[in-house]
Amino acid sequence: MKDMTERPLPTFDDVLQAHERIAPHIHRTPVLTSSYFNELTGAELFFKCENFQKAGAFKVRGASNAVFGLSEEMAAKGVATHSSGNHALSLSYAAGRRGIPCHVVMPRTAPEAKKAAVRGYGGIITECEPSTSSREEVFAKVHEETGADFVHPYNDPRVIAGQGTCSRELVEQVSDLDAVIAPIGGGGMISGCCLTLSNIAPDMEIYAAEPEQADDAYRSFKAGRIIADDAPVTIADGLKVPLKENTWHFVSNHVTDILTASEQEIIDAMKLTWQRMKIVMEPSCAVPLATILKNPDVFRGKRVGVVITGGNVDMDKLPWMAA
Amino acid sequence: MKDMTERPLPTFDDVLQAHERIAPHIHRTPVLTSSYFNELTGAELFFKCENFQKAGAFKVRGASNAVFGLSEEMAAKGVATHSSGNHALSLSYAAGRRGIPCHVVMPRTAPEAKKAAVRGYGGIITECEPSTSSREEVFAKVHEETGADFVHPYNDPRVIAGQGTCSRELVEQVSDLDAVIAPIGGGGMISGCCLTLSNIAPDMEIYAAEPEQADDAYRSFKAGRIIADDAPVTIADGLKVPLKENTWHFVSNHVTDILTASEQEIIDAMKLTWQRMKIVMEPSCAVPLATILKNPDVFRGKRVGVVITGGNVDMDKLPWMAA
Repeated sequence: MKDMTERPLPTFDDVLQAHERIAPHIHRTPVLTSSYFNELTGAELFFKCENFQKAGAFKVRGASNAVFGLSEEMAAKGVATHSSGNHALSLSYAAGRRGIPCHVVMPRTAPEAKKAAVRGYGGIITECEPSTSSREEVFAKVHEETGADFVHPYNDPRVIAGQGTCSRELVEQVSDLDAVIAPIGGGGMISGCCLTLSNIAPDMEIYAAEPEQADDAYRSFKAGRIIADDAPVTIADGLKVPLKENTWHFVSNHVTDILTASEQEIIDAMKLTWQRMKIVMEPSCAVPLATILKNPDVFRGKRVGVVITGGNVDMDKLPWMAA
Repeated sequence: MKDMTERPLPTFDDVLQAHERIAPHIHRTPVLTSSYFNELTGAELFFKCENFQKAGAFKVRGASNAVFGLSEEMAAKGVATHSSGNHALSLSYAAGRRGIPCHVVMPRTAPEAKKAAVRGYGGIITECEPSTSSREEVFAKVHEETGADFVHPYNDPRVIAGQGTCSRELVEQVSDLDAVIAPIGGGGMISGCCLTLSNIAPDMEIYAAEPEQADDAYRSFKAGRIIADDAPVTIADGLKVPLKENTWHFVSNHVTDILTASEQEIIDAMKLTWQRMKIVMEPSCAVPLATILKNPDVFRGKRVGVVITGGNVDMDKLPWMAA
């Protein structure tokens, strides 16, 4: 199975090309501010609202870049991925815009609402058992049968270049930022930030925020090599996956620091954001704010861009509600 | 007790003056669109997001106009009102900005969270029993003791002129609207729309949306006279109050029609908006969308401004959660 992660690392030119390519298919999302949170943190925070993005998350940037960069011949066979989250939605959305098939391998135990959402965007689901071995086996079969192009959720250079368009917009929208902070799971968004900012704003600090209960990137960063956990448990369900070689390259070379927050701190920051900013965002997006509130000395007096990565939430299972 | 509703009806000049007066104290709120809702309704909807407004609701427009229009001498005595909702918050916010006292009479049974929010903005609460007679008695006492200026939540001409600034912004932000729709309770927002639009866009249709279970404005409109209900029960708790003479003037002269929706339709529209638009808004704000979904023939093919009136929600008591 050929994996597009074997391609060379993306360059800033790839980000510029990606931005032009995906512009018709994505929103240039707004940046919101909150005097309440500025007062609370002593920093000036600028929230880049990818929860308002197409398909509800920044992932549509990388997915669209992969889909619309395919030759006609390759595109005809469609795209394929394994994901039960925003990447599956985003790739289905992008493939639908191009009118090509999108094959998604998902555990049969994934919530019906997530399957319905993927199908709503035109994705074709093949179910696997909820184990890595079953997922790999089923995916290999789908891949072989369809010849579809594999778009990895974060380690694919086309995806990293696509995610790099987000921080490029942020820098255009807000002048003189001192730092940017974004959640880290597999590292696609953070790698995009590193790629873009190391080119256009090399002095800017880049912070990654991670749940304590899924702190493999934090431990990797401290150890100087990739450490992967098996099935960490956190409500920030977009952040459970480990770094891979391409994202590790960017994280290890360009990230200023990785900060962590507890489950309760994440839930509190999420609820407070809904209450005060009146926006719906995922638990994963609350991790950066939770770490800012926890480490005021790191951010006080700075102008900080905060990436709100997505807004796809199960409204019937909000984490501050009693189970 | 002198009541400012005895002043003459506001004019469009009052709206223009109000806009200039309150500009430093309010947000010019954004207008959001949703391809999902456009497809669902067959209309082009433009959501004016007063849930992102200062103090979380459009009411801060009218409240700020009243507070900042006071002479130094009158302002020194402060302002007073009775409200357990967004008007209490908004008046406290505006008075705080001017540095004058704000006295709020609230039922002792009001949720602690609401009392805390009013106090958070600097409001001074005097509690009454949860009855109209107690409220009037306590308010008269507060009013007499303080000499504060009474700012009625919606029947005050200064308040109506302030609310009229919202539709003025909307018309500046979106060209060629065919219609505007907003929730109706006491009629402050709708009266503001009528006042402004009858002057600057006299052909525009003006729809008011009301819960079936608190449809006194609907019945008033059909009967041609004010009908007031005693304590209607609806989750749209901002819309329980009856029309008064000043708001009735605008509603009876300028509103195109009043449409109603059931509690379940309101809850469904609210949840769907949170899910698809990723914004937090109050049950009251969902009533317009619920009536648009219920009456597609009225809106199909039209460009419609939809006023999202506020975003102050108890996150622990969302109406789609089982009690």
